[in-house]
Amino acid sequence: MASLDDALARIDHNLDGALKRLFGLLEIRSISADPAYKAECARAAQWLVDELNGLGFDASVRPTAGHSMVVAHARAQRADAPHVLFYGHYDVQPADPLELWETDPFAPRMVDAPEGRRIVARGAADDKGQLMTFVEACRAFMETGGLPCHVTLLFEGEEECGSPSLPAFLAANKADLSADLAMLCDTNMWNRKTPMITTMLRGLALEEVVIRAASRDLHSGLFGGAARNPIHVLAKIVADLHDVNGAITLPGFYDGVPELPQEVAAQWRALDFDEAQFLGDVGLSQPAGERGRSILELIWARPTCDVNGIVGGYTGAGSKTVLPAQASAKFSFRMVGAQDPEAVLASFRAFVEARLPPDCEAEFIRHGASPALTLPFASEPLSRARRALADEWGVEPVLGGSGGSIPIVGEIKRDLGMDALMVGFGLDDDRIHSPNEKYELSSFHKGTRSWARILAALAG
Amino acid sequence: MASLDDALARIDHNLDGALKRLFGLLEIRSISADPAYKAECARAAQWLVDELNGLGFDASVRPTAGHSMVVAHARAQRADAPHVLFYGHYDVQPADPLELWETDPFAPRMVDAPEGRRIVARGAADDKGQLMTFVEACRAFMETGGLPCHVTLLFEGEEECGSPSLPAFLAANKADLSADLAMLCDTNMWNRKTPMITTMLRGLALEEVVIRAASRDLHSGLFGGAARNPIHVLAKIVADLHDVNGAITLPGFYDGVPELPQEVAAQWRALDFDEAQFLGDVGLSQPAGERGRSILELIWARPTCDVNGIVGGYTGAGSKTVLPAQASAKFSFRMVGAQDPEAVLASFRAFVEARLPPDCEAEFIRHGASPALTLPFASEPLSRARRALADEWGVEPVLGGSGGSIPIVGEIKRDLGMDALMVGFGLDDDRIHSPNEKYELSSFHKGTRSWARILAALAG
Repeated sequence: MASLDDALARIDHNLDGALKRLFGLLEIRSISADPAYKAECARAAQWLVDELNGLGFDASVRPTAGHSMVVAHARAQRADAPHVLFYGHYDVQPADPLELWETDPFAPRMVDAPEGRRIVARGAADDKGQLMTFVEACRAFMETGGLPCHVTLLFEGEEECGSPSLPAFLAANKADLSADLAMLCDTNMWNRKTPMITTMLRGLALEEVVIRAASRDLHSGLFGGAARNPIHVLAKIVADLHDVNGAITLPGFYDGVPELPQEVAAQWRALDFDEAQFLGDVGLSQPAGERGRSILELIWARPTCDVNGIVGGYTGAGSKTVLPAQASAKFSFRMVGAQDPEAVLASFRAFVEARLPPDCEAEFIRHGASPALTLPFASEPLSRARRALADEWGVEPVLGGSGGSIPIVGEIKRDLGMDALMVGFGLDDDRIHSPNEKYELSSFHKGTRSWARILAALAG
Repeated sequence: MASLDDALARIDHNLDGALKRLFGLLEIRSISADPAYKAECARAAQWLVDELNGLGFDASVRPTAGHSMVVAHARAQRADAPHVLFYGHYDVQPADPLELWETDPFAPRMVDAPEGRRIVARGAADDKGQLMTFVEACRAFMETGGLPCHVTLLFEGEEECGSPSLPAFLAANKADLSADLAMLCDTNMWNRKTPMITTMLRGLALEEVVIRAASRDLHSGLFGGAARNPIHVLAKIVADLHDVNGAITLPGFYDGVPELPQEVAAQWRALDFDEAQFLGDVGLSQPAGERGRSILELIWARPTCDVNGIVGGYTGAGSKTVLPAQASAKFSFRMVGAQDPEAVLASFRAFVEARLPPDCEAEFIRHGASPALTLPFASEPLSRARRALADEWGVEPVLGGSGGSIPIVGEIKRDLGMDALMVGFGLDDDRIHSPNEKYELSSFHKGTRSWARILAALAG
């Protein structure tokens, strides 16, 4: 049976070859959003299938209504080994504005920077470089005796355009894709030297509210003072949603919101997170949410209620003396822990209804709701992954959160019933979606070694 | 000297001729907003000048940067007679949608309706029919011995497109236009049988507020919970502007707001005003303003604060998880009595500033401010006009208000220093600005007789 040490040595020995393979994938212009690159997307899928079959996977291109999926399977040496599903995506963002790239975004190259060598190309970090860390880790085991875990790979070609085909594909291929644990490599490290496991994704519920009063727009001279103004009604609802301490006033809203475990809270307090810089970068100086909580806690581990858009009456240049018939706002709720999106939305609707004065009605338009996703801090896979990453990087990985949702994680949970281990080796300055995207050579190399350690740890 | 009785008899005798003249003016397509009708506007001005010069006025077309004014003067028999300035406008609204007119809007005709005969044409009520009531009253005096008052006429050709040339024209022709009292005939009767003198026009101050927080739009997943949301800040300001009883909370806002004189309050209470119908016509059932006040009081004699428009963040279809960098709202204040627009706006700005949390700033964009205009209830011209109208109609005229502003009245007050007597014979169902506009024959005939009585009464 392959030993971890053999696999790690193989990864080191393979590095030049691994880079050559990655460059081959990076040269393919698999821009999923632009129909002009449909053939390039197909070529990237086929490239992966060929590569994986050459390695010993059973890989195939799986057509969808849009760009194809790639699915591959390989068995571990031991039949009773755990089974992991690894997800990545082979499509990339468009490269424009092209003139801001220093070189051709699809001519990958190594660049020497003060911090070390880096790979510059569209998709270097998002997500071709990251997904190849896992493929190369598999290669190292397969070339030195065999995989420690059963592995299923799922590579999507539509992540950058909203994953329209993914939910139906997951639902239709449950048996083929089911495993014990999902793994993703689409997230970042805490910093250049500190790995991170993203253990919490906030949920998201989106609800638009339209408040209607009079049956038509009214002249504010003729009716002003007598007629209900739906903008005022809506503003009162928005204003009532937070108290003076920044807490959300919806009844029951905090049901299921956990406090951080002591260990995690202590870890976050010890992080070199510069709150002033985080806010200062966007022109702010003080956190605006619940008082007495750190910014990391506010954005990773606390729920929110925000209005993302509001409109009513006349909004053009100058003025118009109108009392509008309606006003509307788009509300979003970020949820954590065990908060129930349906309960939150029901409480919200009741909150709005309770604030409707006579002659007003509210229409609710739902734009989606998904719960928070948490990899339990006490779970065995998380403990093993933490140890594996600590072994590779020489420092405890940060158990982090993500304030935004990652739809694939929710879909895997919902459709396949699996938790996801989110480990990625991107850095905040990788310029994903922007010109001159890059991926650190250390991310690629030590990322590959990290996956080898994690696979071994999960099996062992 | 001409007697009122002679003039009234002359008006009755002249009616067919007066209608023929009015129809001549109504046939001219003086649509000021449409450049295609520029020549028609000029023709209407010249028609008036010819008509007035034929009557004995000293009338002339007075060019402006836009459509011309018509100014005319005629002296009273007695040199010490009072001097009145009468304002009207010869331009009309566009007639579209043409297919909704039963006949050509510029082919005036008499129609027999259950309530009596009526004149149907674009401009029949707004304002050609109304202005000709005054001209025909002058004719009756001038054909029977002479005018009881010195009369200056000012007929504008741009009222329906915002009177862009008027302020400069008034300022440049102060001496030529000054008189003791201005008169307007651009308002309505209380109902078919009850005349109304509009004695109060609410003032209007318009102020847009832009609240800015972060230096750019933020992702609500990455920043939600930590970053200030300017929509929330704006909503809180809007919500704070009214208390639970509908009163406006701006410090000092009610300074200068008078209570109605007992006599006027009693008259309003006795009016056959159907509050349920007024609100029901626009889909409402309950007044929304200050509690304990009648709707007439709310819309004529009480001040307001309304948001006429609000916008911030994403307002398209679906949802977007954005925390916008800014949000803005357009506020309007309707003012009454001696409320000072500048004091109101200063209080408002301080109110907003006091509610700005850290990292937020407010920009204020002024869109105009003008005070309320009131013809004092105890003034001599008002008393005389009340008696004259009561004599003609057999019922006390309503001393009414207008919730909206009439810019010309404010400009006459500001530039020429004159109060205005607003008497008009339109009815609420005249369909001004709409297809099949009409003016009642009784409005035209008894309106002409009313002006004759008012001129005689003012002369004493």
